[in-house]
This record gives sequence, C-alpha cells and structure tokens, in this order.
Amino acid sequence: MHFMTALRAAWQQRDSLLCVGLDPDPARFPAHLQGRSDAILRFCTQIVDATADLVCCFKPQIAYFAAHRAEDQLEALVEHIHARHPGTPVVLDAKRGDIGSTAEQYAIEAFERFKADAITVNPYMGRDSVDPYLAYPDKGVILLCRTSNPGGSDLQFLEVDTSKGRMKLYEHVARTVAEDWNASGNCALVVGATFPAEIARVRALVGELPLLVPGIGAQGGDIAATLAAGRTENGTGLMINSSRAVLYAGKGEDFAEAARRVAEETRDAINAYR
Amino acid sequence: MHFMTALRAAWQQRDSLLCVGLDPDPARFPAHLQGRSDAILRFCTQIVDATADLVCCFKPQIAYFAAHRAEDQLEALVEHIHARHPGTPVVLDAKRGDIGSTAEQYAIEAFERFKADAITVNPYMGRDSVDPYLAYPDKGVILLCRTSNPGGSDLQFLEVDTSKGRMKLYEHVARTVAEDWNASGNCALVVGATFPAEIARVRALVGELPLLVPGIGAQGGDIAATLAAGRTENGTGLMINSSRAVLYAGKGEDFAEAARRVAEETRDAINAYR
Repeated sequence: MHFMTALRAAWQQRDSLLCVGLDPDPARFPAHLQGRSDAILRFCTQIVDATADLVCCFKPQIAYFAAHRAEDQLEALVEHIHARHPGTPVVLDAKRGDIGSTAEQYAIEAFERFKADAITVNPYMGRDSVDPYLAYPDKGVILLCRTSNPGGSDLQFLEVDTSKGRMKLYEHVARTVAEDWNASGNCALVVGATFPAEIARVRALVGELPLLVPGIGAQGGDIAATLAAGRTENGTGLMINSSRAVLYAGKGEDFAEAARRVAEETRDAINAYR
Repeated sequence: MHFMTALRAAWQQRDSLLCVGLDPDPARFPAHLQGRSDAILRFCTQIVDATADLVCCFKPQIAYFAAHRAEDQLEALVEHIHARHPGTPVVLDAKRGDIGSTAEQYAIEAFERFKADAITVNPYMGRDSVDPYLAYPDKGVILLCRTSNPGGSDLQFLEVDTSKGRMKLYEHVARTVAEDWNASGNCALVVGATFPAEIARVRALVGELPLLVPGIGAQGGDIAATLAAGRTENGTGLMINSSRAVLYAGKGEDFAEAARRVAEETRDAINAYR
C-alpha cells in the first residue's frame, strides 16, 4: 500500500495523529531486559504491541540500532510491525543525503532491507540526491525543513534570494518540495514542534502536505500551538512524534503499560485540539 | 593519533593527496568473487593492500555496506586497514546529521563501532547536531559544503544574508566551520571537484583547512583545476577522492593490480600540479 494511503487511513481509523518514535537506549531499559542480547527488539516490540492502536505511524531512529550493532533487531522489529499491526506505516528516521548513486544504496537499505514505508531525507544536496527515494512510487520521502533543535536556526533561518523572492531557507525548502519534488505525491516535511510560528508558515506554503513534527515531550514543544499551526482543514495532516516520553514512561516490568498510558494521554491531548 | 596529525603525516610520507573511496558494488566485482558471502570484504581488502602506499586516506562509503547487510564486513575492513596499514586514516563517508542526542549515537557508530578516524557530516541541522562528533578530540569531522552532484546548487548556491554580509550558502558554511566550529582544529570540508571556482573561493575563506574533494574520475572533475584552486602553500591541504575509476579499473582476477595502476597514475597526475 502507498505510504500516503496508509497514513491517511491510520489517521482516520485510529483517530490519532500520534507517531511513536522508537529510539531504544539500552541504558534506560527496565532491569529485567538489561544484558539480554535481544533486549532492543524485546523492548521495542512490547512498546509497539502496547501502543499500535493509538498511533498513526511508528518511527524507528536507525542510529540507536546502529550504535549497538543491532541492525538485525531493526529488521525483525519492522517485520513484526508489518505482520502483527498491518496498516501501521513505519517511517525510518535516517536523515540520509548523498549523491544519486549512493542514495540508490541508501534507498535499498531503507526500503528493501529494512522494509520501511517512508524515510527521512536531508535536502542539503538537492534534487538528484532525493530522486532515488522518489523512484519508489509507494514509499514516503520526508524532507528535513525546520528541525526542532536549537542549531536548526543556524542555516535554516537564513534569508535567501530565490526566483520566488526573498524568504528563509526552510521556507524555500518547503516550497521546493511542495511545488517541484512532490510531483508523485509522496513527499512530506519535518517541522519541529519547538517552532509553532514556523509550522504555520510551512502549512501556508504547502497546502495539505503531511508534516512530521518532532519536539513535543522531552524537547518541550507545545501541543495546542502545534495543532493550531499545523492541522489541515479535516483535522489531520500531522504526524506528531513522541519518543522518550512514551518509551521511558515506566522503569519496571510494566513499562509497556506505562508507555500505553502516556501514548493514550498524548493522543487525547492532541485530539482535544483537532 | 589525531586524524589531522595522521593525515598530514600521510600527505608527506606517502607523497600523495589521493583518497581511495571504497564504494563496493558486488554487481561490478570480478567473476571469481561473485556469490561469496565475504565478497565485499575480500574485494575491499585487496584494493586496500594494493593501494595503501599510494594514498593519504581511505574513504569507505557506508551505504554500500548497509544495502548488503555487510556492516560486519565494514568493521573487519577498517580493522584490517588499522592493523596492516597503520597511519592510514579511515574516513567513514556517512553524511550523518541529526539532533544532539541522536548524533551521539551516530558518533558511537562511526568512532567506537566502526573505528573510523573521521566522518562526513551534513551541516543543515546546525551546530548542536555537529557537537557530538567534535567531542571526540582525536577524530576528524568533515562537513558537507559544496557537493559534487548537479543538485548541489539547489540550496548551496543560494545567496544568503549573514552577519558577515551577503554570500552563497556554501560560503557561509565554509566560514562558519572555519571560524566557529573548528575551535578544536578537527574540522574539514567537502568541496566537489566539479566546481573548481568554488574550491578556490572556499580555500580563500578557510586558510589551511583540509578539503575532501570528490568528483574526479567517474564524475568528470579536472585534476589540474582542482589543484590550482585548492592546494595550500606547501602543496597539500586536499584529500582528492577517486572511487569507481580505481575500484573497477580491472574486471579479472588481477583487478587489484589494475586498481593499483590507476591509483598510481592518479596520484602522479595530482602530484604533477602540486
């Protein structure tokens, strides 16, 4: 199924804009999982099974697997999500960006090896560095636009001259993706919840394009402001990510139940402003 | 040893500015290696052993390993380079870029798991996305500046307003890295050989900062123009990368000898303009 089709169906059927980010940090796992060779997979599958009916997508962050030589556990995790929770899109958060011939290899990694439904991509190297992902017609390509970290302003907030006039770099990225790179309808953008005014600016530029919004929870973004700025007319259009606040809600054997409670509260807090 | 110390020693002792890029594509391997489960490692170690005395560094491109589930072969390859060719720096070409907490994981992946001496990093997310790599005092951090692909101009060539006046985005990246991010002396920049005028502009902005220059060989960059634009006063300052032209110089069992011949020719062609 096309990523966008699956995402829209999940928004409606699960009544949720919540994306749970899977950033497994073994040092923060409950004691009973510590030291197990498959701890990352066990932790993540229990989080997934406890929250799948509450989310519009899951977003595993590949660095947390790669740092622990756990690519095999990431493969098994995505397979688990597809098998046990069909219709739940998986966004591989990898923020790749390279010349075309190398991007083809990254696309194979994300879509064929890990079987992700979408990938996050860095736009700094331009159109031909993104084409190899766009060449997969059913996959989502989510470009970094305005990121949630403090340094996000260093380049993204610079004023640039473009053929459409002066604007900030992140605005130019938003326009370029919406008006040019999205010809096949499989693009989305990353816009951090820590900057609601910029979510609103991006929404004004890109119509109904889905936005992946990290930064609520541990990073301090505001849910009400994010919804007011970014929701589309039908009250969707957003994948609002929470990672650490959900994953580490509990420290005991009942960590997955604790994660479910926080995920449910977060989904409901989001829905209150739709 | 510090990456910069090792690089300067390699420039002098090997009398070479050549970086051999390790982008293993099994479909292009000689017939006798096809189908072996360790084909990538065998291919790359033979290239390395045949060319190590001719290079200032090696640059494995991680996507080519990840697409083939061959992270274990990349680990073994870097271990082989360090053990058999000590003093030869290994640049992991990964072009990572993410928020600080995730960048810490990517730094573990690059420096602790794969034991690279340097990594390529994307600057789009700003200073705090780069700090976790800079925190490793002996490692090199090589920021994308002006990339060699056609789409490199899409963002990098935009005119931006900065506190130092109007300039192109890649020039702002070059200045920011040289004047701010390089406080510990471990930064370098990626500037493509396909744009010699921009190599010269970057060199004028960054003093002696090392430049990693992809784009000669298969991508068509000009060696004489690259050297004229980018060499420092003592005739170094550059890591000039060639990947495919070296790796796939031969198609038979003597592929490593063919690679050595091309690497030697390329080194000499570079040295003719130093």
